[in-house]
Amino acid sequence: MKESLTETCVPARAQPGVQRDGKLRHVVESQQFTVPLLMELFDRAAGMERVVARGGSLDFRNKIMATLFYAPSTRTRFSFEAAMHRLGGSVLSTEHAHSFSSAVEGEQLEDTIRIIGSYCDMIVLRPIEEGGAKRAAQVSPVPVINAGDGDGGQHPTQALLDLYTIFRERPLDGLRVAIIGELDRGRTARSLAYLLAKFDRVKLFFVSPPALRMRKDILDYLDEHGIDYEIEKGIDRVIGEADVVYLTRIRPDRLQGDSLKPYVIDSSVLRRMKPDALILHPLPRTVELDGSVDADPRALYFRQAKNGLFVRMALLTMLLE
Amino acid sequence: MKESLTETCVPARAQPGVQRDGKLRHVVESQQFTVPLLMELFDRAAGMERVVARGGSLDFRNKIMATLFYAPSTRTRFSFEAAMHRLGGSVLSTEHAHSFSSAVEGEQLEDTIRIIGSYCDMIVLRPIEEGGAKRAAQVSPVPVINAGDGDGGQHPTQALLDLYTIFRERPLDGLRVAIIGELDRGRTARSLAYLLAKFDRVKLFFVSPPALRMRKDILDYLDEHGIDYEIEKGIDRVIGEADVVYLTRIRPDRLQGDSLKPYVIDSSVLRRMKPDALILHPLPRTVELDGSVDADPRALYFRQAKNGLFVRMALLTMLLE
Amino acid sequence: MKESLTETCVPARAQPGVQRDGKLRHVVESQQFTVPLLMELFDRAAGMERVVARGGSLDFRNKIMATLFYAPSTRTRFSFEAAMHRLGGSVLSTEHAHSFSSAVEGEQLEDTIRIIGSYCDMIVLRPIEEGGAKRAAQVSPVPVINAGDGDGGQHPTQALLDLYTIFRERPLDGLRVAIIGELDRGRTARSLAYLLAKFDRVKLFFVSPPALRMRKDILDYLDEHGIDYEIEKGIDRVIGEADVVYLTRIRPDRLQGDSLKPYVIDSSVLRRMKPDALILHPLPRTVELDGSVDADPRALYFRQAKNGLFVRMALLTMLLE
Repeated sequence: MKESLTETCVPARAQPGVQRDGKLRHVVESQQFTVPLLMELFDRAAGMERVVARGGSLDFRNKIMATLFYAPSTRTRFSFEAAMHRLGGSVLSTEHAHSFSSAVEGEQLEDTIRIIGSYCDMIVLRPIEEGGAKRAAQVSPVPVINAGDGDGGQHPTQALLDLYTIFRERPLDGLRVAIIGELDRGRTARSLAYLLAKFDRVKLFFVSPPALRMRKDILDYLDEHGIDYEIEKGIDRVIGEADVVYLTRIRPDRLQGDSLKPYVIDSSVLRRMKPDALILHPLPRTVELDGSVDADPRALYFRQAKNGLFVRMALLTMLLE
Repeated sequence: MKESLTETCVPARAQPGVQRDGKLRHVVESQQFTVPLLMELFDRAAGMERVVARGGSLDFRNKIMATLFYAPSTRTRFSFEAAMHRLGGSVLSTEHAHSFSSAVEGEQLEDTIRIIGSYCDMIVLRPIEEGGAKRAAQVSPVPVINAGDGDGGQHPTQALLDLYTIFRERPLDGLRVAIIGELDRGRTARSLAYLLAKFDRVKLFFVSPPALRMRKDILDYLDEHGIDYEIEKGIDRVIGEADVVYLTRIRPDRLQGDSLKPYVIDSSVLRRMKPDALILHPLPRTVELDGSVDADPRALYFRQAKNGLFVRMALLTMLLE
Repeated sequence: MKESLTETCVPARAQPGVQRDGKLRHVVESQQFTVPLLMELFDRAAGMERVVARGGSLDFRNKIMATLFYAPSTRTRFSFEAAMHRLGGSVLSTEHAHSFSSAVEGEQLEDTIRIIGSYCDMIVLRPIEEGGAKRAAQVSPVPVINAGDGDGGQHPTQALLDLYTIFRERPLDGLRVAIIGELDRGRTARSLAYLLAKFDRVKLFFVSPPALRMRKDILDYLDEHGIDYEIEKGIDRVIGEADVVYLTRIRPDRLQGDSLKPYVIDSSVLRRMKPDALILHPLPRTVELDGSVDADPRALYFRQAKNGLFVRMALLTMLLE
């Protein structure tokens, strides 16, 4: 692992309030995690599997977590809320919060966070706008977790559980990872790329139509950190050498018919993958991941979803202790 | 009681996952309940009245129930959630879950259930489509309860609480029951008919306009099981001999003005009912049940709603123990 | 304090079910609170600050509160729900409940309250219609709290926390209070005016454009109770002598541009206020309260929001004990 990357634990000046005294305070973007912090998180997550198997704990009985979702996501919200309940805590929940007035939304988010932060011990936020989680962290009296900000923002806890799922199967150094789909708006793909960049000799393949390709900010970051990557227009050249095939959702309005084909994983593609490849998908899927893949032992996406519970439990303990 | 009807506990082949080793595993449709299972449920429900009177229990302190409602119903959802809270458990809640994309909804439901089933210990599901609960039960790692599927599907827990309300007042064998309203789409009426068919010498009157009459699948089921029933166009001929008057909601867009009259229960109709008749309604009502009936001692519908809490608590204990 | 005002604890005939045997049973409108009741509430609220500092209590572990919001308000709802969780209780929650049919809503509300009241121990209600909370209280088997009814109704718990915030800073007798904004529809302003009228030598300034001025029912009430008040078209004449500046939200569709100016508090207005004035706002704000005011030590509105937690906890204990 690249210990030298611990400096990417961004300094307080750049992200006021995100980190303090080396302790994790808010979770805004995946690059704020150092390798030692990741290893601590994964160690705790493994412990949480045992806590859940025993039926949960009551450690957070007096703690309250608020989930503030301006865009609905039942799965992500339930994953966080189940994590809190498994730790004995309580939840304030919004399925689809609306701002009072979009005209003054800018100001509203800060006010809302200040107020809700005075009722609870932690806020899990899915804002509409890119950067909303960072703005929230700057004013919040309690820890804020970014649960996905904007189409082109980040979804760091998804990347953490993705990485944990890989970590449970094999060493992270030297990994070859194909990231496939709508990469321009894929906040999970973006967050995962930042995280993988923390490890040695990683090689990334970004597979998408040219119009939907990974944005420049990520590529610049990888260049700066000396990460090897390639841009591909289809899976053909990389599917046989990828250790991890990370598929992301393709919305039907963005890609249809024949132009979809180079990005779909189905049983015919399975034969061309490494026998020990790992197939991941943050779910929900549309057409890019065929149901025939589900029975393949390399298909890890339901396990991946379940790992979300353990990783989020671990994260809550790190923020609330 | 017809003990011979226990075979209607449908075999595992027909409904994979619904039942296993005679133990109740999922609740998909009311006909899966045998008479002994009903009697066990009712016995537990009576016990739950005492548990609530004592202030609830903490037996399920580490259990999580998810309510996944694709069509909103505050009352039904609260009834399930209150049942879980009274048993000390926690709840993940959706007021109005939306599928990610209706185009791929078919696949989505199964994926969603697999994922949410890995976060919690039980799922209470109100799907949009008829048959959604059965599909969910086939893939779920945890028990699924059908909280009403589609307009013409079933709502088995409503029928269970309806029957419990009657059972608390009189023997179920030999009962004469008038079921009144929009019967073609009445999933509560459908579920109740299946349940009543389990008992001896029951007679059913289905009262509705011809266009809204009970569908053939139910009538075929009753014929097969030798249940006596009559189809009526109005309440006049049956109101004087019914032991139970089971009214269901009539939506204003389906029946108005004078054509409504033969289906309305008001104070003038009360005089023609048996002095010990039971008036039930699953609520909410529209115009078919006049407020003047509320004070009549035969009006049991608020008691019926309250029984929902006890019956659902009992059901949760049978599924989670 | 005007002890003689205790008779405004409205007699049972006028508000059936609101109060019984002098014990607080429902919270429908702010004028039902007598001064001794207010002092008991504030005393308990101060105690709740200590309970929260210790991490909450488990006193209400077996109690269930339902929040039934027909108009969404994340902040108000979270404030009530956090209060219940801090006391160890459970919550049934609606983010945005819809009536089954608006045509029959009148009847529906009563039915809904009767049913939900049989599942839980208390109902926090935000109805669409003015007067909805009173109607609910008349049929509910459990305490009902009005969480804001209609545009021109009341929001008594907001007024209670407003008054508590002032009470923590100075004596309530002899207070000079400027209430500013859309007063015709300001239910928080209305509720606060009723409460302030309970105290001696209070003087109120109602500041709004003529078209949005405080409605006659409040002015009549103040006249009857001998409260001194003035109607003002702008803040200029009163801003220098107000002990409390109580701003309320101005919706952009009701007042814009230059006509807004006489009602806006910004840093230039701060200089003209008393050095020990208190600035309150129920939040959310739009344009009437500039962000530059936030850092002023006289700005109490975030503290005011936080006090909502303590006052609501105190209220729950008074209703549930």
